[in-house]
Amino acid sequence: MKLPDFVEADRSAIEAVLAQLLPSENTPPPSIHRAMRYSVSAGGKRIRPILCIEAARMFTHGLEAAIQVGCALEFIHTYSLIHDDLPALDNDDLRRGKPTNHKVFGEAIAILAGDALLTLAFQALAAAPLDPARRVRVITEIGAAAGTVNGMIGGQVADIEAEGKPVDAAALEYIHRSKTAALIRGSIVAGAIAGGAADADIERLRRFGDAIGWAFQVVDDLLDVEESSAALGKTAGKDQAQKKATYPALFGLEKSHAIAADLKAKAHAELVSFGERAAHLRQLSEFLVSRRS
Amino acid sequence: MKLPDFVEADRSAIEAVLAQLLPSENTPPPSIHRAMRYSVSAGGKRIRPILCIEAARMFTHGLEAAIQVGCALEFIHTYSLIHDDLPALDNDDLRRGKPTNHKVFGEAIAILAGDALLTLAFQALAAAPLDPARRVRVITEIGAAAGTVNGMIGGQVADIEAEGKPVDAAALEYIHRSKTAALIRGSIVAGAIAGGAADADIERLRRFGDAIGWAFQVVDDLLDVEESSAALGKTAGKDQAQKKATYPALFGLEKSHAIAADLKAKAHAELVSFGERAAHLRQLSEFLVSRRS
Repeated sequence: MKLPDFVEADRSAIEAVLAQLLPSENTPPPSIHRAMRYSVSAGGKRIRPILCIEAARMFTHGLEAAIQVGCALEFIHTYSLIHDDLPALDNDDLRRGKPTNHKVFGEAIAILAGDALLTLAFQALAAAPLDPARRVRVITEIGAAAGTVNGMIGGQVADIEAEGKPVDAAALEYIHRSKTAALIRGSIVAGAIAGGAADADIERLRRFGDAIGWAFQVVDDLLDVEESSAALGKTAGKDQAQKKATYPALFGLEKSHAIAADLKAKAHAELVSFGERAAHLRQLSEFLVSRRS
Repeated sequence: MKLPDFVEADRSAIEAVLAQLLPSENTPPPSIHRAMRYSVSAGGKRIRPILCIEAARMFTHGLEAAIQVGCALEFIHTYSLIHDDLPALDNDDLRRGKPTNHKVFGEAIAILAGDALLTLAFQALAAAPLDPARRVRVITEIGAAAGTVNGMIGGQVADIEAEGKPVDAAALEYIHRSKTAALIRGSIVAGAIAGGAADADIERLRRFGDAIGWAFQVVDDLLDVEESSAALGKTAGKDQAQKKATYPALFGLEKSHAIAADLKAKAHAELVSFGERAAHLRQLSEFLVSRRS
């Protein structure tokens, strides 16, 4: 599937600000800054920052704040991958087709590089070019999305604890909505706040983000079964090997595809009232559920 | 050395708010919240929150904001201990006389509990009862103090990388000022901001905090040599076993004591112009350099 042109423009803007926000590789101590830059520049698709920017664009033409907020989201996403790949967690050697952070820098630096990216994320949010009240609101949203109560860390813990155990649909829903949907929803909500959206619009986009984020993880489960390691840039078939709780494992492939399609429809229904203003978010969500890697 | 009475009152206030801010042990997923609470309630002295509150008290009688900021500082300090104790880092089994987090909950949960406390710290700061502009300023200060550039993580990395290598006085100063003094200084500066201090007073307290935080780590080095594991509640003599860069290793015991005393004098000189208002900070810094555990 061809990506729309605005995606490339967003990515360029994000790459430039990521590079500005990350301390240079010469800043002491160099090893931690090399490790941070290694994983941030390891070929991520920048999905969360792009969603943040495109949510902001619906309400404003000044995107500077949303780009900086998007970079913070990418730092948080990257820290979560570094820690998730550690031997004590998923023990992955390969991420986006490259050796994982701890394989290159050792476990100690990988743990600290994750910590450092999480810290830098909040530093970037505190310095975003937005009035202080909206900065605080963005920090609150992203903190909750990344945290333990229905947030990313909570989902990761539930995911680890579900390994090898029977899970029902409700438990699986908790895992996917917390582990993945929370930060995607947070990206869209933070973008809307940065763009100056009214509260009713923010809540509509929150529901959109929840549905599309949830669909995103169902598709991720499907790709792990249906695609090769080469296509994914990470080890395929790992979910089954690790007895992870996934949609294909609980519902089979066909029903999982139907669930993803239903979630996408639910997401798109939230965009109807925005009309043409939501064209980019519609295109992005089409891409997120039909991607093959 | 007997602690002044205000310390007990501060501690009670901090314990109450720590318990409010931490999700209950029944909140799903329970394991991560148990792990977070385990380490936060493992008998820490609450030095950073107490310094924060006492810096605020110099400027205001409303301490609610400083108490909340102090709790965030304690979450950051606790996360750093959990990660520092991991097998890939210092590999410690004992902390404050109790088994370390990963010994009780396993490495995966310990890594995520650290991540969760760091995240919760910024959530608590974003929700502190302060006007948004000062909340953002506090987040900026604490983010920098906890980060990689002359901050806590940078100091930890330099500390790890110095193990077993010859270090000079400048390298040792970098490690101690970053690893330990940065967050202590940040606690005092954040308290002053929360208390509504003027900029000149904030900068004076920044210099006080840097000197007393640096002295604190020199004393920590000395205690590792001079005290027993039982007195410290952690493994004594570890610095030498791990060939850590320390003041006693570089300068000997006598000179190290003299350096700590000089730093305390430097710190106290910054307090002179505050007169009686700084009595509590003076008492606290006396305690910090003369403590035996």
